[in-house]
Amino acid sequence: MSLPTHVRLVEVGPRDGLQNEAQPITVADKVRLVDDLSEAGLSYIEVGSFVSPKWVPQMAGSAEVFSAIKQRAGVTYAALAPNLRGFEDALAAGVKEVAVFAAASEAFSQRNINCSISESLKRFEPIMDAAHAHGIRVRGYVSCVLGCPYEGKVNAEQVAPVAKALHDMGCYEVSLGDTLGSGTAGDTRRLFEVVAQQVPRAQLAGHFHDTYGQALANVYASLLEGIHVFDSSVAGLGGCPYAKGATGNIATEDVLYLLQGLGIETGIDLDRLIAAGQRISQVLGRANGSRVAKAHSAQ
Amino acid sequence: MSLPTHVRLVEVGPRDGLQNEAQPITVADKVRLVDDLSEAGLSYIEVGSFVSPKWVPQMAGSAEVFSAIKQRAGVTYAALAPNLRGFEDALAAGVKEVAVFAAASEAFSQRNINCSISESLKRFEPIMDAAHAHGIRVRGYVSCVLGCPYEGKVNAEQVAPVAKALHDMGCYEVSLGDTLGSGTAGDTRRLFEVVAQQVPRAQLAGHFHDTYGQALANVYASLLEGIHVFDSSVAGLGGCPYAKGATGNIATEDVLYLLQGLGIETGIDLDRLIAAGQRISQVLGRANGSRVAKAHSAQ
Repeated sequence: MSLPTHVRLVEVGPRDGLQNEAQPITVADKVRLVDDLSEAGLSYIEVGSFVSPKWVPQMAGSAEVFSAIKQRAGVTYAALAPNLRGFEDALAAGVKEVAVFAAASEAFSQRNINCSISESLKRFEPIMDAAHAHGIRVRGYVSCVLGCPYEGKVNAEQVAPVAKALHDMGCYEVSLGDTLGSGTAGDTRRLFEVVAQQVPRAQLAGHFHDTYGQALANVYASLLEGIHVFDSSVAGLGGCPYAKGATGNIATEDVLYLLQGLGIETGIDLDRLIAAGQRISQVLGRANGSRVAKAHSAQ
Repeated sequence: MSLPTHVRLVEVGPRDGLQNEAQPITVADKVRLVDDLSEAGLSYIEVGSFVSPKWVPQMAGSAEVFSAIKQRAGVTYAALAPNLRGFEDALAAGVKEVAVFAAASEAFSQRNINCSISESLKRFEPIMDAAHAHGIRVRGYVSCVLGCPYEGKVNAEQVAPVAKALHDMGCYEVSLGDTLGSGTAGDTRRLFEVVAQQVPRAQLAGHFHDTYGQALANVYASLLEGIHVFDSSVAGLGGCPYAKGATGNIATEDVLYLLQGLGIETGIDLDRLIAAGQRISQVLGRANGSRVAKAHSAQ
């Protein structure tokens, strides 16, 4: 299989990233981050999450963020909506695309969202109906696709039915997430080979965490499997809640650098992206998690 | 090409790593590091360098280190010997294998070792003769194989003749080093494709720096090209002298984790390796540069 000529990067820093940062952040700083990212050429930005602020305090104010960002033409601004209440709040905030998430591991599903995998999938049905009625696209996430903090290794055969269920209920794309960051390149390839028997490759995305330093090798392995959509987080925003002090999301800058080296188009300006990551890192008072950004600023 | 079943890791932490650390280190701590590494199962350790301490003060005491380490059967303890004087000192210290290095970039050669590429190759001839006379094996390094801090991008066609020259003069293995860490996976594959037309793949090794976060993807790309020897540095020891504050050598732990995930044998015990890296990181008062080590210690 030859490499794709174009890749779409789904920027999850403002949601998946900030959600796992200890530091609180103002609505104004979130808005600036989202605007910086769209100006850098990101065409898909996950802006926030419509969940109870009791659960995820960093996501309070998602509605305010949506109303304040500059909505550029051609850019998708998405939000996580784990239940119908969240979906309705997202709708009221003018969100045009939402995401839902299930786990590939039963233990993770129980501990993270307090229900079984099949119960979680059932919970999405009213969201899918409502989304269909309002012309809202829904993206699906599957977490723990290569490993689970409670169950250990997760097989591709456990992932495929969950991905298929999300696809069957109407998710136009299913993102497979190595939440633990423990997967390696061979497992990644096998994962896509197996899941692609249930969901077309063109509707699958890769979402890798760099906890064990494997994320970029997994992106390359996925490209070799014909995957052309990847989730990433500017400046590597986000830690790993299952291993304190460890690295979380793969940095968008580092993925983009790889893609540019491979001659793959993304429409993103690396210098502007680095500047956006430097700014948010300063706001949070944290080190920039992108090695490309570090190398640039060290020159 | 299918992946190799066995990989040999060449541990360069005690030499290439420590050489680029700002912190001085005692002979006793170096000896402990080398012994920890051989006990972890590394079969090849680059222990030191026989150069003038005026140039590289961190490598002073290499002879004392060689005389104090426990020389385990089956383990190769090597040293860098950039000139005949260094070779003779290495020989006197009982070294059984040495390494020489040339650059693929003319500007880097001039600025780093003060002579042209062809002059540097000529300088190795008396070393090769002396090594042959004493039954000492010689390994060759080529630096700047994918990029140069002065010339920018380096083409595989510039690397091939240098690798061939080292091979022709008797180096049993030639390690291709991305000194700048700027190369990406596609360039890495092309590099080995081109150089393998001059030097057999089985006699080539990959040496990647993680300055731009690309090193592990480059290792995976090299494996796909049939390369089965890689240089790496425990705890990612070593910075990048061309971009202050940036990352240097790829961490041995992170490469080993990938190889284990791919089912490739190395003979190395990951837990012991992590312990060795934690210890030397504490001695140096630096953060551990291995993501695998960080994830383990954070659990």
